[in-house]
Amino acid sequence: MILTVTLNPALDLTYTVDALVPHTTHRVRSVAERAGGKGLNVARVLHAAGEPVLATGLLGGPTGAAVQTLAAAAGLPTAFVPIAAETRRTVSIVDGTDATGLWEPGPLVSADEWAGFVDRYADLLTVARVVTLSGSLPAGLPGDAYATLIRLARDRGVPAVLDTSGEPLRHGVAAGPDLIKPNADELAALLGPRPGVAAIRGLLETGCRAVVVSRGHRGLLAVTGAGSWQAAPPAAVTGNPTGAGDACVAALARGLRDRTPWPELLADAVALSAAAVAAPVAGAVDAEHYRAIRPHISVTPNDEGAPRDVQSHR
Amino acid sequence: MILTVTLNPALDLTYTVDALVPHTTHRVRSVAERAGGKGLNVARVLHAAGEPVLATGLLGGPTGAAVQTLAAAAGLPTAFVPIAAETRRTVSIVDGTDATGLWEPGPLVSADEWAGFVDRYADLLTVARVVTLSGSLPAGLPGDAYATLIRLARDRGVPAVLDTSGEPLRHGVAAGPDLIKPNADELAALLGPRPGVAAIRGLLETGCRAVVVSRGHRGLLAVTGAGSWQAAPPAAVTGNPTGAGDACVAALARGLRDRTPWPELLADAVALSAAAVAAPVAGAVDAEHYRAIRPHISVTPNDEGAPRDVQSHR
Repeated sequence: MILTVTLNPALDLTYTVDALVPHTTHRVRSVAERAGGKGLNVARVLHAAGEPVLATGLLGGPTGAAVQTLAAAAGLPTAFVPIAAETRRTVSIVDGTDATGLWEPGPLVSADEWAGFVDRYADLLTVARVVTLSGSLPAGLPGDAYATLIRLARDRGVPAVLDTSGEPLRHGVAAGPDLIKPNADELAALLGPRPGVAAIRGLLETGCRAVVVSRGHRGLLAVTGAGSWQAAPPAAVTGNPTGAGDACVAALARGLRDRTPWPELLADAVALSAAAVAAPVAGAVDAEHYRAIRPHISVTPNDEGAPRDVQSHR
Repeated sequence: MILTVTLNPALDLTYTVDALVPHTTHRVRSVAERAGGKGLNVARVLHAAGEPVLATGLLGGPTGAAVQTLAAAAGLPTAFVPIAAETRRTVSIVDGTDATGLWEPGPLVSADEWAGFVDRYADLLTVARVVTLSGSLPAGLPGDAYATLIRLARDRGVPAVLDTSGEPLRHGVAAGPDLIKPNADELAALLGPRPGVAAIRGLLETGCRAVVVSRGHRGLLAVTGAGSWQAAPPAAVTGNPTGAGDACVAALARGLRDRTPWPELLADAVALSAAAVAAPVAGAVDAEHYRAIRPHISVTPNDEGAPRDVQSHR
């Protein structure tokens, strides 16, 4: 089973309106509700691919109960830990032009609740073959919360994939995850602007075992102890890029579990990301697109001598 | 006890953002949750004034449960009837300039659920001294839903106050409510543009016993079998006009219960409306403002011969 951790999930509401005009009133044409949060997207992609998965994290209040209900309705096995404060909502207002996002601040988690989660997580690790740690931390959690979870996974021999940003990423890297998956912006925040492969390789020396940088339609750059590769789709896919990174994490987690060789694993991750862009909703993948594109992903060893620009052009 | 009916309540979310910019993402600074819907505002105003009140209507799903929880937290006695479909949300995004509204479409109510509500309502009428019927109808209800509720109230000798618009108002008027409280736009939709007192008086002949037209800062125009009056505050109040009409309905319901003479009742309704504008949140009134302004409301008999323009200049 792959364990997905979502510490700051959300009730994700998508409102369709004719056109968003500030300071007027809008009739919402349709409302779509999803169990949101990056880790839940990872779980949904794995579940859709037929992989055994268990989604854990923190949920509270009526909004948390709604997330639980939606996850159950989607068939996702879950083991969330209750908190007193209310889980946040994220509202996306979609009109004919583009989406407008509203992100609630999220709950405040107490030290006791965090300790309770860590205990539960340690129990779940005993039956996990890989763990993914995705997204932001809610208020009240220490900046090294993911570092704590990574160390527990290491102690139990469970590979950990970390997909976060800022301080939680910085602390997490130092705890030695098996894989981090920053995008170009997150990597730049960690290493400074336009880091080359040599700078990325420096992260491996701090304990992190592999860095897979997602670069939008340019695909992935992987820097690992076993070598470095670039993997790219044959052409840019048009669609909804939200959730593409989560589909990538799903593929990477599956590959770590199966000890898939890096070139094959990266090709799979690029194909599943592209299939997520082709699907209209975050956390879904277009299975037909995945099968069609999978044989056409190019994976090339990276010239390790020359520093390269990993900035996304997306 | 005053019974307030809210057939299409809402979980009312107010998001504070720095500035709403379409097609960008916003961190919400603060989230305020309220049990929303015009009838719930009426109930809240009455409850704050120390009047015995009972809020009924239809609630469904997790969002309905959240409305129930918030109403209970506000100390409101409630007797809502459950429905299968989910209660709507209304989202107000407040930035430095003004509010932007997003109104979910609301639930679909089945014929059985409506019949169940009518039974429950008939039971509650036996202990009600006045009933208020406020707001829009959810999908699935017949256009004459309020007419049905008004006839049941008449049969039991319970005065009914109707505050709605469009087809439900048209049907409701024909059922003979004791009072309707249209605003200028709602009245124009019923009678044509800029109706005079003579046209309003025509409504009394169709069975309605009194018409109180709310005209924003110009106050109220009342046309009743006992005479016609205009009631106005001494000066325009600045603040949040949302909920002022509901505070007016609360005062009118209380006055009908107590058989308060019309001039006094209208002065009270104008003062309570102004106190609602002065309070920042819909469904709340500024009690100090109410006491200060109450003695200064002017009530003048209306010259019944001359048709008057009742269009609000707000």
